[in-house]
Amino acid sequence: MTLDEYVREQQRIVDAALDRWIPTESTPPEIIFRAMRYSVFAGGKRIRPLLCIASAQSISDLPRGVENVACALEMIHTYSLIHDDLPALDNDDLRRGRPTCHKAFGEAIAILAGDALLTLAFEVLSKAPEVDSCRRVRLVQELAAAAGAAGGMIAGQVHDLEGERQRPSASLLERIHRAKTGALLRASVRFGAIYAGADDQQLAAITSYGEHVGLAFQIVDDILDVERSSEELGKTAGKDAQQHKITFPAVYGIERSKAMAEEERLRAHTALRHFDDRADRLRELADLVVHRRA
Amino acid sequence: MTLDEYVREQQRIVDAALDRWIPTESTPPEIIFRAMRYSVFAGGKRIRPLLCIASAQSISDLPRGVENVACALEMIHTYSLIHDDLPALDNDDLRRGRPTCHKAFGEAIAILAGDALLTLAFEVLSKAPEVDSCRRVRLVQELAAAAGAAGGMIAGQVHDLEGERQRPSASLLERIHRAKTGALLRASVRFGAIYAGADDQQLAAITSYGEHVGLAFQIVDDILDVERSSEELGKTAGKDAQQHKITFPAVYGIERSKAMAEEERLRAHTALRHFDDRADRLRELADLVVHRRA
Repeated sequence: MTLDEYVREQQRIVDAALDRWIPTESTPPEIIFRAMRYSVFAGGKRIRPLLCIASAQSISDLPRGVENVACALEMIHTYSLIHDDLPALDNDDLRRGRPTCHKAFGEAIAILAGDALLTLAFEVLSKAPEVDSCRRVRLVQELAAAAGAAGGMIAGQVHDLEGERQRPSASLLERIHRAKTGALLRASVRFGAIYAGADDQQLAAITSYGEHVGLAFQIVDDILDVERSSEELGKTAGKDAQQHKITFPAVYGIERSKAMAEEERLRAHTALRHFDDRADRLRELADLVVHRRA
Repeated sequence: MTLDEYVREQQRIVDAALDRWIPTESTPPEIIFRAMRYSVFAGGKRIRPLLCIASAQSISDLPRGVENVACALEMIHTYSLIHDDLPALDNDDLRRGRPTCHKAFGEAIAILAGDALLTLAFEVLSKAPEVDSCRRVRLVQELAAAAGAAGGMIAGQVHDLEGERQRPSASLLERIHRAKTGALLRASVRFGAIYAGADDQQLAAITSYGEHVGLAFQIVDDILDVERSSEELGKTAGKDAQQHKITFPAVYGIERSKAMAEEERLRAHTALRHFDDRADRLRELADLVVHRRA
């Protein structure tokens, strides 16, 4: 199977699981589930679930049911996009080529749809089939830390808001990235490893892989925001510069940023050096993250 | 010990636990923890934690560590107030006698502080000391259902938003209440019972108690909104009528509403008829909920 076929197959599996976990649009109160589904099924690339599943597969041949916990990662990612797009935060009208959730459903429903996805993510973990209570609890702890205000995504968002009023610097950039995007990407691969029963050494290696891939992902994201059009990205391009966001190109320039992404890609490969060929999909995903065009 | 002394002692214990779980105001990014603490330590009555602890005490003599899971209920309650007060939702400026979170910290930080409290509540449950993984998972499931969009608090908030544009009716009122306030109050007593190891029969009785107390609480809340001033309530009074909210006085009138609250209080007592005197605090709390003046 080519990587492209593998990615599409896993996306189908993840989408089917998301469809099972999120109540249908005819469940009352209908509008909230319409809004949740609108944002979840908007053509996202499912990078976090893919990393989670490939990570589980690098540890165990058949990590049955891992797509369920992978769904929780996508729900958290989607909730964070919905809230970040709100007028009080990034005030963005376009996401994945469509009006943002608050543009389509109004601010009140967008706030509540985000809250609902955040809540549902924890519900999914607490009910994940094929896995014992002890592991479910560990996943809840992982997700809460990655999503939370102490070094997690919420901290990243706050630093980002504050960063708009500060001079760009390498240390501020690193702090923002580590919390805002890094924490959930790192948690994504840790999710898969914990789910599949990784030992401490394996988990440490996978975590290092996740940190390097996460950093590469953010650098590439920042580069794409400069180089590609809104149409190609499916979201408003050039917003970073417009909003004076601190980005890798702003701090290091485009060429140095590209070299850094490549370095991080190689470091991700190095982190997996003791893994056998079951980690090949994970290796390919590191390449995909750096070489993507949108 | 009088009920008043008991309540104050438990409030102290809950506040100390909240203080341990919520990072200090000097934790970066400081502003988010300042906002979380501003809203959590704003003089709330801690009704949900109190119900949780008294419920646990009705099952077991010494439910060690129950205050930790009680904290999670207060965090969820506070998050829901912060988000409900936002301009896009109820647009309230006053809460517990002080400016609402978004008035004090701005909308962006208020949205994120709510998100952070919601996330932290699940983290607390996943780390609750003195209790095994199996019970932690059950509490996560309970809380997610009570807070969620399928019949939980978020559903209640959506029904409430929609209700502003509909004719008041008994069935709509019941649906709003059951989700918006009822679900978390019901979960509060179930939390304590599950924590303390209640059997199925005990849990069913406690659940019934919680449903009646929850209904009584909402009826009294609606009556107080009509009868008391903003100063006495510590929040904007008369908002319900102003915003055309569907309330018990609006549907049944004040006198009938008062009689209904009293009926629910008696039903709560009846639900506990097979419990011994360890349930006396729970019985007294039912009376307190109905006879409070703010």
